[in-house]
Amino acid sequence: MSGSRKKTPAGRFAYDGLDRVMHERARLSILTSLATNNEGHLFADLRRLCDLTDGNLSRHLQVLQEAGLVEIWKGFKDKRPQTLCRLTVKGRARFLAYVSVLEDVVGDALKASKTSRSRRGELPEGWLPA
Amino acid sequence: MSGSRKKTPAGRFAYDGLDRVMHERARLSILTSLATNNEGHLFADLRRLCDLTDGNLSRHLQVLQEAGLVEIWKGFKDKRPQTLCRLTVKGRARFLAYVSVLEDVVGDALKASKTSRSRRGELPEGWLPA
Repeated sequence: MSGSRKKTPAGRFAYDGLDRVMHERARLSILTSLATNNEGHLFADLRRLCDLTDGNLSRHLQVLQEAGLVEIWKGFKDKRPQTLCRLTVKGRARFLAYVSVLEDVVGDALKASKTSRSRRGELPEGWLPA
Repeated sequence: MSGSRKKTPAGRFAYDGLDRVMHERARLSILTSLATNNEGHLFADLRRLCDLTDGNLSRHLQVLQEAGLVEIWKGFKDKRPQTLCRLTVKGRARFLAYVSVLEDVVGDALKASKTSRSRRGELPEGWLPA
């Protein structure tokens, strides 16, 4: 067993910075897509890049807009009404802070995969599956 | 606007490999913690490392166990009943596959943060906030 009680600080793997608004898979997809383009993406492009339905994309954009991470603009392009989505300044900063926590998770997991490859030990006699 | 329609493949930012069972924050925390130790962690240690309540940890462990990612053993240590949790062989493999997708997200986001720092362009006249 781990012996971790003494060595490893409490909450070492809690990752508090994984903000639930940004961590949800579709929203992570939207934010990463928007982060690649300062000028934003049209709704139809974003839907395609993230492989989401109209309804799902709308719903998640609303959550991101209400959190102040994304701004949504209506206008015309080639005489057709269009919706443009882009990160707010705050949204970009918060997303980068989130990504830095994600980087910690990846670092911890990859470090673990290098140090823990050896065969698992047998359990002491008398332990039973729950 | 992006002009991404022609250049970027559909679903480029969909990240299908972000399995919902593993992506949930508390479960990601549990899995990373367990990945660091082949022999597993006692319930009390895991609760402390992940900063979860008894109820939350139990609930998430059950989801992970039902998905075949984690195994749970009951036994005695120092004459007191204990619960030991550890990754299954399948759980470790699937977790590493998940982490490799997470690595892609981080890579995409960091690349974006380097290339998109310049000031955002003004929107064309007539665009209005939604």
